[in-house]
Amino acid sequence: MKQIYLDWAATAIPDIDILTDVNRIALTYFANPSSVHEQGLKAGDFLMTCRNNMAKVLDIRDDQLIFTSGGSESNNLVLFSLLKKLKTDSILKHHPGIIISGIEHPSMYEPARTLSNIGFTLDFIRTGRNGIVDLDDLKGKLKKDTVLVSVILVNNETGAVQPVESLTEIVRKYSGNTGRYIHIHTDAVQALGKIPFSLTGSGVDSASFSAHKIRGPRGVGALYLKDIEKIIPLYSGGGQEKNIRPGTENLPGIYGFFRSAEKAVPAVHENPGKMYALSCYFIREIKEIKNAVIIPEERLNFESSQFSPYIISAAFPPVPSEVTVRALSEKGIMISAGSACSAHSSLSRGRVLKNMGYNPELYSSAVRFSFGNTTTEEEINTAISIIRDTIPRLTGIAGA
Amino acid sequence: MKQIYLDWAATAIPDIDILTDVNRIALTYFANPSSVHEQGLKAGDFLMTCRNNMAKVLDIRDDQLIFTSGGSESNNLVLFSLLKKLKTDSILKHHPGIIISGIEHPSMYEPARTLSNIGFTLDFIRTGRNGIVDLDDLKGKLKKDTVLVSVILVNNETGAVQPVESLTEIVRKYSGNTGRYIHIHTDAVQALGKIPFSLTGSGVDSASFSAHKIRGPRGVGALYLKDIEKIIPLYSGGGQEKNIRPGTENLPGIYGFFRSAEKAVPAVHENPGKMYALSCYFIREIKEIKNAVIIPEERLNFESSQFSPYIISAAFPPVPSEVTVRALSEKGIMISAGSACSAHSSLSRGRVLKNMGYNPELYSSAVRFSFGNTTTEEEINTAISIIRDTIPRLTGIAGA
Repeated sequence: MKQIYLDWAATAIPDIDILTDVNRIALTYFANPSSVHEQGLKAGDFLMTCRNNMAKVLDIRDDQLIFTSGGSESNNLVLFSLLKKLKTDSILKHHPGIIISGIEHPSMYEPARTLSNIGFTLDFIRTGRNGIVDLDDLKGKLKKDTVLVSVILVNNETGAVQPVESLTEIVRKYSGNTGRYIHIHTDAVQALGKIPFSLTGSGVDSASFSAHKIRGPRGVGALYLKDIEKIIPLYSGGGQEKNIRPGTENLPGIYGFFRSAEKAVPAVHENPGKMYALSCYFIREIKEIKNAVIIPEERLNFESSQFSPYIISAAFPPVPSEVTVRALSEKGIMISAGSACSAHSSLSRGRVLKNMGYNPELYSSAVRFSFGNTTTEEEINTAISIIRDTIPRLTGIAGA
Repeated sequence: MKQIYLDWAATAIPDIDILTDVNRIALTYFANPSSVHEQGLKAGDFLMTCRNNMAKVLDIRDDQLIFTSGGSESNNLVLFSLLKKLKTDSILKHHPGIIISGIEHPSMYEPARTLSNIGFTLDFIRTGRNGIVDLDDLKGKLKKDTVLVSVILVNNETGAVQPVESLTEIVRKYSGNTGRYIHIHTDAVQALGKIPFSLTGSGVDSASFSAHKIRGPRGVGALYLKDIEKIIPLYSGGGQEKNIRPGTENLPGIYGFFRSAEKAVPAVHENPGKMYALSCYFIREIKEIKNAVIIPEERLNFESSQFSPYIISAAFPPVPSEVTVRALSEKGIMISAGSACSAHSSLSRGRVLKNMGYNPELYSSAVRFSFGNTTTEEEINTAISIIRDTIPRLTGIAGA
């Protein structure tokens, strides 16, 4: 049975050409980039080349780019840098404020909750039923002690693109009035190579990225920092990555990340309408299924720029998410219940849809279809016919 | 010119067979191990197999093994878990104590200093001129508020093996009297596959490991946790690695780590005398050079188990370390000035030797020779003749 992989938002099918080159680089530049002998300098120079090239792809300066082990580390790094920057006694005295959305990835949501347990105040921007944060609500939540605002650029469960640029304008305006710096972060893991965006144009102070979501190697990510001096990271060690991220540089992984970004990022601009058309077609076909609910329901009415065409959320109540995932898996269609990153915790399951105002029956039956750069029209057609055949049987069994 | 790589303690020359298999695994088990569809479950099962196999190599239970991005992350993870476990207000009130040595790797030394700036008290166990920590000194430094003691198992600059087993006995005895738990950590990065040791036998609560030091892939490490329940990590996210370490599991990297450990660890027991004899021979030959100082001077008088035969420290005053490294590099011999991990900070340079009681003239002229599993007698002989030819010219120029 031919398998169709529609779980690209969990991880992409790696690019074999890139992985092969990654191994070549691992052998050619095998030395520690921090070593000062000939091989070390050679590796150090190549690291600089990778950083320059990747910075060009992201349209930023190379001194604004830090490599990490992935998106989760990048998010945690930014959040916990607050602990070192603000001093513990001051935190306990002044309770500086953090504002995030209720639809953040767990690697932002969970550490923010940790900070709220150790002295910070934590507020959540309201999210509409459309999956988009309410900026008017943000306006009312900014306080003079607010130190960080973070909103995910493309939500990993619904594909909803958040208005980060407008958010930044609001925060900067507020900040201009109070004279206090507010750090604006965005988790851009599901945005890279999927939707067009400009880091400098958005005005954010930092953004997280991951290689494995765009066919690059596992275990490598990045962090954009508008002004590296404004971050005082908690973790430390040998001073690598300009003292922002310790540990021997994963040079082969960094090279692989650049290679995958170099392919994926310009491709977003090449044929922007194609993937959008495909996603609309998929949504329309799924909508036809009895009991099917597209999340958000009116997604097709939104502009193409408001949702990533690579992520589609739908629910088939009363069939539990896991049942749908397993039934489709048996037919060769690989999809996800919520996100893979919430699979370990039943508590966090459904949190995103719940915060959008959906009820338990709906969010416990939601699944995620996610596409990748190599997803073909043929695959989508086959998937649709299998889904349209499978779901009604499941809803029948479930007594709907 | 044939190059001889003697900087294995900075990073090992990767094993091409392992890297090739890593890519095969990346394609075979491409899905996210947390996904619940068929491919995800397959990846999840394979992750379990890797964990089981690696745990066997380390002679621990598989529920005691957490994969990270490397040794630096493992060390930071253990230290900063104290922040979450002990609560900020309690830390500021009680100033819990951390005891480490002055010869720790920067990824332990620097975060410990950070903790000392945010409420913890930090004490250092005295290190003898022989590079070994003084356990009598530790006895006087244990206090009822001590919460963590950490000593590196094999020092990364001198190769000195620290008496971690005896240290554990002392700490446990003290802990038994006070009834308070003290976490004992060891950075075992330079020990794995280089010296025989038993994690359970040593009695430590946690230990850090890195794959790239033993010919495995970059960007993957591990953390042994005797009792996983005793650690409450600061970083969080999708709940991977039993909630200890967030981020999509680097399955190919983890597999590569297991493969490199499976080769390196049993090899330690196969011919333990061979590498020791080679290191003694090297030391004797280097000692003959005018002005040469082996660190510690009396290293040859120690038992074979007290120094890793893979790391040898020597100084050629008054020639600055960098001059020696570059001169030998020009002759094809790749060695290190201190450790690669201290290359980014002139402040941390020399810290290890300084804490052993050496003076600036000596530690600023110290270099590290480090061997690997594939280092041959022939390479060592060639290196010796080049070193014996090069150093006297340098000391001559330096006016010694």
